[in-house]
Amino acid sequence: MQHKKRHTNARRRFIKKAAVLAAAPVMIGHHPGLAKQQVLHHVFFWLKRPGSAADQKALVEGLKTLKAVPQVRQLLIGTPASTVKRDVVDNSFQVSELMYFNSTADQDAYQEHPIHKAFVEKYSHLWDRVVVYDMITV
Amino acid sequence: MQHKKRHTNARRRFIKKAAVLAAAPVMIGHHPGLAKQQVLHHVFFWLKRPGSAADQKALVEGLKTLKAVPQVRQLLIGTPASTVKRDVVDNSFQVSELMYFNSTADQDAYQEHPIHKAFVEKYSHLWDRVVVYDMITV
Repeated sequence: MQHKKRHTNARRRFIKKAAVLAAAPVMIGHHPGLAKQQVLHHVFFWLKRPGSAADQKALVEGLKTLKAVPQVRQLLIGTPASTVKRDVVDNSFQVSELMYFNSTADQDAYQEHPIHKAFVEKYSHLWDRVVVYDMITV
Repeated sequence: MQHKKRHTNARRRFIKKAAVLAAAPVMIGHHPGLAKQQVLHHVFFWLKRPGSAADQKALVEGLKTLKAVPQVRQLLIGTPASTVKRDVVDNSFQVSELMYFNSTADQDAYQEHPIHKAFVEKYSHLWDRVVVYDMITV
């Protein structure tokens, strides 16, 4: 009986914990495991050879190496989406890189990290222009 | 007994489902509940009165209403982060809005949704310029 009761309590605790975790993903604007206020770092790349699929692919591969920088909580690499054309939409870039950090200090540290510096050294010959936006979520 | 068995099976199914969801958040670049290939819609706003904290706050409040559009899987609202200044960083905007969609069709549908149209009608007098980037993750 004692054993059965412990088992039931453990199961109740697990269900409670699982329910909390299961509920999290449906919350808009919430990333489980990330700090509440997040720093977003979004970089847009314009290639020297914008029509080169090989250069685009190479840059994407290079960007993937940045996942290994410990401060990078999340990395999403993109290319222009074929949404409906509108005057306000800038789809002239070839590659984008969105990163999540826990703080501005972490973003600053990422800039100085050897893996990031190696990426710039190896791949910067591919791009003509870069625009960076750094945001903190409200 | 029949009732007890049904109850146990339902609990087992719940635990299995909860465990799958609970495991997801540790994966870098993966948003639980979102499609594998996601469409990111990032909008940057430059206000007519860039120094007005009241206008910035009003726009942020307006953007929050967009969460109610069913196609919007995730919404993050930001302001410029005080990262280290660099030539490539554009921190001249006042507010940003990042949305996740499951497809380009969903993003296009969001543009036409009455809640989005009401937002533009009510708040567009606040901004001078908007730049939009639409990406699909690779």
